Amino acid sequence: MTRIAVLGCGRIGRVHAQNLARHPRARLVAVFDVQPEAARETATLLNVKAARSVEEILGARDLDALVIATPTDTHLELIRAAVRAGKAVFCEKPVDLDLQRARECARELADARPAVMIGFNRRFDPSFRALRERLARGEIGRLELAVITSRDPAPPPPDYIKVSGGLFRDMTIHDFDMARHLAGDIAEVHALGAGLVDPQIAELGDIDTCTVSLRAKSGALVQISNSRRCAYGYDQRIEVFGALGMLQAGNRHATSVEAWSAERTGARDRVLDFFIERYREAYRAELDAFLTAVEDGIAPRPDFSDGLEALHLATAASESLRTGRVVALGA
Amino acid sequence: MTRIAVLGCGRIGRVHAQNLARHPRARLVAVFDVQPEAARETATLLNVKAARSVEEILGARDLDALVIATPTDTHLELIRAAVRAGKAVFCEKPVDLDLQRARECARELADARPAVMIGFNRRFDPSFRALRERLARGEIGRLELAVITSRDPAPPPPDYIKVSGGLFRDMTIHDFDMARHLAGDIAEVHALGAGLVDPQIAELGDIDTCTVSLRAKSGALVQISNSRRCAYGYDQRIEVFGALGMLQAGNRHATSVEAWSAERTGARDRVLDFFIERYREAYRAELDAFLTAVEDGIAPRPDFSDGLEALHLATAASESLRTGRVVALGA
Amino acid sequence: MTRIAVLGCGRIGRVHAQNLARHPRARLVAVFDVQPEAARETATLLNVKAARSVEEILGARDLDALVIATPTDTHLELIRAAVRAGKAVFCEKPVDLDLQRARECARELADARPAVMIGFNRRFDPSFRALRERLARGEIGRLELAVITSRDPAPPPPDYIKVSGGLFRDMTIHDFDMARHLAGDIAEVHALGAGLVDPQIAELGDIDTCTVSLRAKSGALVQISNSRRCAYGYDQRIEVFGALGMLQAGNRHATSVEAWSAERTGARDRVLDFFIERYREAYRAELDAFLTAVEDGIAPRPDFSDGLEALHLATAASESLRTGRVVALGA
Amino acid sequence: MTRIAVLGCGRIGRVHAQNLARHPRARLVAVFDVQPEAARETATLLNVKAARSVEEILGARDLDALVIATPTDTHLELIRAAVRAGKAVFCEKPVDLDLQRARECARELADARPAVMIGFNRRFDPSFRALRERLARGEIGRLELAVITSRDPAPPPPDYIKVSGGLFRDMTIHDFDMARHLAGDIAEVHALGAGLVDPQIAELGDIDTCTVSLRAKSGALVQISNSRRCAYGYDQRIEVFGALGMLQAGNRHATSVEAWSAERTGARDRVLDFFIERYREAYRAELDAFLTAVEDGIAPRPDFSDGLEALHLATAASESLRTGRVVALGA
Repeated sequence: MTRIAVLGCGRIGRVHAQNLARHPRARLVAVFDVQPEAARETATLLNVKAARSVEEILGARDLDALVIATPTDTHLELIRAAVRAGKAVFCEKPVDLDLQRARECARELADARPAVMIGFNRRFDPSFRALRERLARGEIGRLELAVITSRDPAPPPPDYIKVSGGLFRDMTIHDFDMARHLAGDIAEVHALGAGLVDPQIAELGDIDTCTVSLRAKSGALVQISNSRRCAYGYDQRIEVFGALGMLQAGNRHATSVEAWSAERTGARDRVLDFFIERYREAYRAELDAFLTAVEDGIAPRPDFSDGLEALHLATAASESLRTGRVVALGA
Repeated sequence: MTRIAVLGCGRIGRVHAQNLARHPRARLVAVFDVQPEAARETATLLNVKAARSVEEILGARDLDALVIATPTDTHLELIRAAVRAGKAVFCEKPVDLDLQRARECARELADARPAVMIGFNRRFDPSFRALRERLARGEIGRLELAVITSRDPAPPPPDYIKVSGGLFRDMTIHDFDMARHLAGDIAEVHALGAGLVDPQIAELGDIDTCTVSLRAKSGALVQISNSRRCAYGYDQRIEVFGALGMLQAGNRHATSVEAWSAERTGARDRVLDFFIERYREAYRAELDAFLTAVEDGIAPRPDFSDGLEALHLATAASESLRTGRVVALGA
Repeated sequence: MTRIAVLGCGRIGRVHAQNLARHPRARLVAVFDVQPEAARETATLLNVKAARSVEEILGARDLDALVIATPTDTHLELIRAAVRAGKAVFCEKPVDLDLQRARECARELADARPAVMIGFNRRFDPSFRALRERLARGEIGRLELAVITSRDPAPPPPDYIKVSGGLFRDMTIHDFDMARHLAGDIAEVHALGAGLVDPQIAELGDIDTCTVSLRAKSGALVQISNSRRCAYGYDQRIEVFGALGMLQAGNRHATSVEAWSAERTGARDRVLDFFIERYREAYRAELDAFLTAVEDGIAPRPDFSDGLEALHLATAASESLRTGRVVALGA
Repeated sequence: MTRIAVLGCGRIGRVHAQNLARHPRARLVAVFDVQPEAARETATLLNVKAARSVEEILGARDLDALVIATPTDTHLELIRAAVRAGKAVFCEKPVDLDLQRARECARELADARPAVMIGFNRRFDPSFRALRERLARGEIGRLELAVITSRDPAPPPPDYIKVSGGLFRDMTIHDFDMARHLAGDIAEVHALGAGLVDPQIAELGDIDTCTVSLRAKSGALVQISNSRRCAYGYDQRIEVFGALGMLQAGNRHATSVEAWSAERTGARDRVLDFFIERYREAYRAELDAFLTAVEDGIAPRPDFSDGLEALHLATAASESLRTGRVVALGA
C-alpha cells in the first residue's frame, strides 16, 4: 500500500486524487493547494486530510510518494524538494518551460534514488498502448513513418495562453513525447505554424495551428499536426506505417450508434471531447504504473529525461519556426 | 461471338441491351418491344435492328440467344418458343407468378438442350459473390445462420403493385434465391407481413414489409427482412455466420467521403439508391456468365429450376402468411 | 444513502456487490450466499458483513433494499419475502421459468408498495439506451422493423443448460425484453430453433440457435437471432428502421486499433467477449436507476410485469417451436 | 464529335485510347508510338489507324485534338508542335523535369489559342472531387489544414527511377497539384526525405519516403506523406480540416465484404492496388472534361500553368531537402 499525497487541486489534480482514492494499492493521505479552499473541498470529498503547507507533506514520515499537479513554474522546485525528502514523484507535464533550467535539474537528479515519473498520459491510453506494442512486436516491420493528429476541442482562455509557454511546449509536447515513444530519439525537427483559430492567440505572439516533421535517429519520419480547435470533439489519432503495413488508432465515441437517413449514412456522435473523458483509462493506468514502480523499486517511464527530451523538441520546434530551418538535435 | 437479341425494351431490357452492345464476345443483332417506338429508340441508340415481331427474331438463323425482359406473364411462353427455336435463353425473374404453370414448363424443359438462365442478378454482385466464395471455401465453417436485408428506396406505383404478384413473388424472390444460393435447398418457410409503408398497397391486398424465417435442409437458418421503402437508399446486405465467424457484405456508396462536424462524425453519403447503379457490375457479370455458358455449351446457373424454386418459396411464404404456420416444402 | 444487501455471491452477485460498494449513494451492508465461503470471500473483499441467513437480512432494520442474484428457482420466493419485509427489490432475470407461478406472484405483488425492479441490464447499455431515446424522439419516424442480434461467445456447460429453462427463457429472454422496450407490447410470436453448436445441448432437449419473428401491437415487426457460440466475441447489436431511416447500435471493442496489411485492411480486435466487460456500464447504470427509484419513491422500470412479459414471450416461443404456428398473445 | 489521336501506346496511353474509343462524343482516329509494334497492337485492338509518324498526325486535317502519353522528355516539344498545328492538347504529367524549360514553354504558350490540359487525374476522382466541392461550398469553413497521403504499392524498377526526375517530380507532383487544388497557391515549402524502402533507390541518389509541409498563400497548412511501397495496396487519402469540421476521402475496395473471426473483426480486403483500377473513373472523367472544353471552346483545367506550378513545388521541395530550409516561392 503506497501512501501518497497530491499537490495541486485543480482539474487534473482532482482527477489524480480521485483515482488514487479508489486505487486498491494506494492510500491517499493528504492533498494540498495554495488556495486552501480548493484543498479543503477535495479533501472533504475524498475523506482525506487537507495539508496546510507543502512542508507539512514533505515532512510527513508516513508518506511514500507525491503527485505534483501544480502550475508548471513550480514543477522543478517541487520535484527537487520531494526527491530530497525521499519521496517518489509523479509530476505532470511539462517539467518546465525552460530547457536550461530543466537540464540543470536533470543533472542534479542523475544520481537520485527516488523515482521521478512524468505524466505523459497518452502512453497509457489503451489504443495507443496496443498500437505501440504491436509495432514493437514487428507487426508492420520497422517503423518508417508515423502520423500523429492532435486537435483540442477549443482554445484555452488568453490568460492561460500567456503562461502556457506556447503551443509547442503546452500542447505539442504530448505529441513530441509520443513521437519519441514510437520512433525513439529524434535527430531533426522542422515546424510550420499559423494563427488560424483565434486572433487573440496571435496577438499574444503564439500560434494555434502547426505541422511538424521529425526525423528519428532510426531513420523513420514523423508528422505531427495540431489545432487549438476541433468542431467534432477531441481529435486524437496515430498512424504508423512500415514495410508490412499500417496500424491506426482512432478516436473514441461514447456510444456505437450510427444513423442512416435521407441526408447521410453511418453517422456517429461527436468524438469524446473532454480530455478527462477521452483519457480516463490512461489517467488510471499511468498512476497504476507509477505505483507498481514505487512498490517494486524499479525506475518508472516516462521519467524526467523523457520530460526533458520532449521539452528539447518543443524548444527546437520554436527555433525552426523562427528560422525556417531544420534544427538538428545534438548528439 | 454470340449473336443475341433482346425482347423487351423497358428499363431492364435497355440495361441488358447496352451491356450486350458493349460486350466484346457478344453481337447484339436486334431488339423488340410490343411498343414499336420503344424498340426503335433503343435500336437507334445502339445501332441495331428493331425487329417487328417476336417471330422475326425466333426465325432468324443468325441468332444464337435471346434475352427476355418482357412482362412476367409472357416469360413462360417466350421461353418455350425460344427453346423450340433452338435459342439459348436468358430470362428475367420471376419465371412466372403461378407455381403450377411454372412447374409444367419445367417438365417440358427437362430434356431441352438450349440453356435457360434466370436473371437473379444478385448472385453476380462482386461483394455477394466474394462472400459466397469465402463461405464455400470454409472460412467461417459450415453455415449456421444467414441474414438477408433488402429494402427498396421507394414503393412502385399502384399499377405495378396490381400485377406484381405481391411482395414475395416480386421483391422477396431475390432474397429467396439468395437464401438457396447461400444455404442450399430449403425445408421450411415462415413469414410475417405488414402494411406499414403505403395504405394503397394494403388496399390492393398486398404487404410492403415482411420478415421471413427459413430452415434449410442442411439445418442452417435464414432470416430475411424487406421493406418497400428506405430513406437512405437501396439497402442490400448479407450476413452469414458459422462456427468460425461471420462474413458481412454491406451497402455501396458513390464516394468514400466522410464528414465530421459538431453534430456528427464519420457521416457518409446515401447508399446507391437506384438498382441499376447498385447492381451495375452484377448486370454485366450475369450476362458474361450467360455468354460463357452458351459459348462453352455448359449449363448456366441460376437456371429454370432455380427460378422455379424461388417461386416455390414465394408461394410457400404466401401460404404461411395466410395460415400463420410454418410451411414445409415437400421432397 | 440507500442501505442495501446482496443475496447470492456468484459471478453476477459479485458484480452488483462491487458496484454498490463503490456507489456514492448506496451503503452495501451485507452479502449472503448459501455457500458461506462464497459470502465470506465477497464480504472480506468489500469490507462488509457476511450474513448467516436470508432471515438475518430480511429482519435487519437498517436495510432498505435487496439485490437478488441467487439461482432462478429462488427468485419468486425471495421477492415475496423481501416485499413482505418492506424492502425494495432488484432481482436478476428471469423472474422464474414457469409462467403460471410468475403470474401468481405478479397478482400478489399488484398492490405491494416496495419497488421491484428486474435486471434487464441491456436497457441500460449506453448505446442501446441512446438508440432507444433517438427512436422515441422520432428521429426515424414510427418504428417499422427492429433486428436484434445476440450471440454468446461460448455455450454454458451442460449442467447449466439442464436448469436454464432452455434457450428462450435463459438467453432470448433479454431479446424479448428489448423487443418490448423498443416496439411495445407484442401480439404474435413465431420461432425456429436448431441444434448447430453443441450436440450435448440437443441431447438435453434444448436448442442453441434460433430465429424469432414478432409482431408488435403497434404493427412493427421484430427479428431476433441467437447463437450460443460466437467466434469473434459477444455479438450484441440492434437495428431499428422507420420511414425516415435507420439507427444501428453495434459491438464494442477494447481499443480503436485497426490493422492494414497485405492480407487485409481495417481489421480490428475481437469484440468485447465477456458479458461483464461488455455491459460494465449497463450494470452500473441499472443499479443507479434502482437506487434513484428507491430514493425518490417512484416505480422503477423494468419492473416485475416486464419480467413476466418477457417470460410470456419465451413461453410462447417454445410453443411456436413445438407447433410450427404463430402464437398470439392474448389481450 | 471531337476527332482525336493518342501519342504513346504505353500503359497510360492505352488507357486513354480505350476510354476515347468508347466515349460517345469522341472519335479516336489514330494512335502512334515510336515502337511501331506497340502502335499496331493498340490500333488493331481498337480498330483505328496506326500512324507512322508524329508528323502524319500533326498534319492530319481531320483531327481536332491530341493526347500526349509519351516519355516526359518529349512533352514540351510535342505540346509546342501540336499547338502550332492548331490541335488541342491533353498531356500527361509532369510537363517536364526542368523548371526553366517548362517556364519558357509557358511563355510561348501564353497567347496560344488551342487548349492545353495536363493529366492530373486525381482532381477527377469522384471522392476527391466531392471532397473539394464540399470544401468549396463552405461545409467545414475556410480550409486550415489538409493532409494528403499517397503511397504506391511497390517501387518502380531502377531503370525507371533513373529517368523519373526523382520522387518529388515523379510521384509527389500529384500531391503538389492536389495541394494547390485544395489550398490555392503555395507560399512556402519544406521537405524531409529518406531512403527506407529500397537501397537501390538511394544508390541512384533518390529518396523513397518523404514528408512535406506547405504553407498556402491563404494561410492554410498542408501535409503530404509519400512512400514508394505499401503492403495493403495503393493508399490514396485526403483529409481537410476547418473551423466547422473535417472531410475525409479514403481508399477504395473491390468489395464491401468484412470478415469477423476469432483473430480479428471487420477486416476488409486489400485496397485497390493498381493505379489504373483505383483511378478508373478519374481517367474517364478527365478526358470527358477535356472533350467538353474542346467542344465548348473554353479553357480546360488543370492547364499548363498548373503543370508548371506543380513542377515549381517539386523543384522547391528538392531544394528544401538539400538545404534543410523552408523555400519561399516568389511572388
